[in-house]
Amino acid sequence: MTEDELGGRLAATAEAAVQRLAAALGAAPLAGETARPARLLAAMRHGVLGGGKRLRPALVVETARLFGRDIDDGHGDILLAAAALECVHCYSLVHDDLPAMDDDDIRRGQPTVHRAFDEATAILAGDALLTLAFDLLADPAGEPDAAIRIRLVTRLARAAGMGGMVGGQMLDLAAEGRFDAPAAPMGEAEVRSLQAMKTGALLRFAVDAGAMLGRASGADAAWLARYGDLVGLAFQLADDLLDATADAATVGKATGKDAGRGKATLVALHGVEAARRRLDDLVAEAEAVLQPFGERADALVAIARFIAARPS
Amino acid sequence: MTEDELGGRLAATAEAAVQRLAAALGAAPLAGETARPARLLAAMRHGVLGGGKRLRPALVVETARLFGRDIDDGHGDILLAAAALECVHCYSLVHDDLPAMDDDDIRRGQPTVHRAFDEATAILAGDALLTLAFDLLADPAGEPDAAIRIRLVTRLARAAGMGGMVGGQMLDLAAEGRFDAPAAPMGEAEVRSLQAMKTGALLRFAVDAGAMLGRASGADAAWLARYGDLVGLAFQLADDLLDATADAATVGKATGKDAGRGKATLVALHGVEAARRRLDDLVAEAEAVLQPFGERADALVAIARFIAARPS
Repeated sequence: MTEDELGGRLAATAEAAVQRLAAALGAAPLAGETARPARLLAAMRHGVLGGGKRLRPALVVETARLFGRDIDDGHGDILLAAAALECVHCYSLVHDDLPAMDDDDIRRGQPTVHRAFDEATAILAGDALLTLAFDLLADPAGEPDAAIRIRLVTRLARAAGMGGMVGGQMLDLAAEGRFDAPAAPMGEAEVRSLQAMKTGALLRFAVDAGAMLGRASGADAAWLARYGDLVGLAFQLADDLLDATADAATVGKATGKDAGRGKATLVALHGVEAARRRLDDLVAEAEAVLQPFGERADALVAIARFIAARPS
Repeated sequence: MTEDELGGRLAATAEAAVQRLAAALGAAPLAGETARPARLLAAMRHGVLGGGKRLRPALVVETARLFGRDIDDGHGDILLAAAALECVHCYSLVHDDLPAMDDDDIRRGQPTVHRAFDEATAILAGDALLTLAFDLLADPAGEPDAAIRIRLVTRLARAAGMGGMVGGQMLDLAAEGRFDAPAAPMGEAEVRSLQAMKTGALLRFAVDAGAMLGRASGADAAWLARYGDLVGLAFQLADDLLDATADAATVGKATGKDAGRGKATLVALHGVEAARRRLDDLVAEAEAVLQPFGERADALVAIARFIAARPS
């Protein structure tokens, strides 16, 4: 699959996922709802519809496609799980950007939600996006089998919660020395655990969800879970490498800042060259894991390469 | 049922629900989790284990008891749904107390989570409690039928989200004139809608969940839904009456503050005497709705009276 072909395919999935999100936020109040305040909806739209690579929806859809599922295939809307996952990802960005957290003013070239609106609205918009994720995942218009839908709910809650994404963000703040005690320097095992929680868990969920939607066998699901973990590791390592490159360009300033924050990355621990080799190895292993699926897995191979090479 | 009997029964349910919450927060990392950061767990415990009337768990359990269900009856743990609901209630308090929201320092005689810890930890603890709620609700150790569990997920998401509790909090902030435009005075219909969303939706969910766990017939579920709505209305009206009484004791100061915030309550719209009569009517109607269930509904009758008469 060429880069252009992959690009077109990812763009089409992103567009379709965004359509589902826009539809969910544009609907009239549903059964069990009273009214949807306009300001809250506007802030949720700002947080979730404003761009992004939509990598997680792509992983859900491309994994499900391995097993013959597709968007609009008439067997249940696989995009609802993809949209639910994107809601969780975007809510985490809305909350992480808050002044009490990372205090960011700009995301994807736009003001962050608390800058475009206000802090209270951003907190509530994040809360509502997280809640909406479970509504979308539970929707019978998606996965038709209630037993699978409820397993998706459990998996998403675990990936996103105290032992997953939220826990990882907590560890990240602690590693910056944000709380009372000065943070102890992190070793490799701790860095890996933090990264697996903060970003790895949701990427892994994307692949797990695609496998569940595709009714993958236990063996296939296990192979794909490994792919999901590798993609998560590659994602974070690529991020760290970009940070390190940027640091070099600014004459060591950001490196000093990292050290001062007590934040270790795998790049800081092992150096840029070793990290680059490790990233190549991760992509090669991801390709090897996908080999049994043959050409059907071309898109997932291309996504792994894209993640390792992505410019931002 | 005497007040003492009801008190003992509610206390026993509260204790059992808190045990379930403590167990969920005390468990080793589950499948799909990596590790649970100690500071995050401590903040979640602070937010959810520190007292409160546990009215919502009581409504779940007492409604399920109408249909012969009970705690530890061997047919699935009805307290998991009750604990899930309490997580949602408590997360909303943690976030509402934040400086950017209501800026409260004390709750239930203890420092609020962001005062006992810090703002970032409180945001994340709230996020993790909301996520945990869906994990608990999806747990097969609770309701054994996956189709019913997934319906509970949908109902809770609707009750708690943009068209329910979070939406109601948004309207409440808007009514205080927190955003750009000065808030327009609210009429009765708007006050009712706001209250139905902010507090009514979760109370109604409690009763709906109890009916679902009890496999109530459609007719019974509809009767009980009416009871849930009445209890929600009574809850809010009792709150407003308490506020109004406190206002009078402070020589109109708080009344002026209410008016300045542009917040109308049913008490402000109709006066204290009319509100008291209305509250009596609501309790009488709740009792009438429960009459077909006979003595089995004594606890639910007592809860309605308790809500109307509660001192805080």
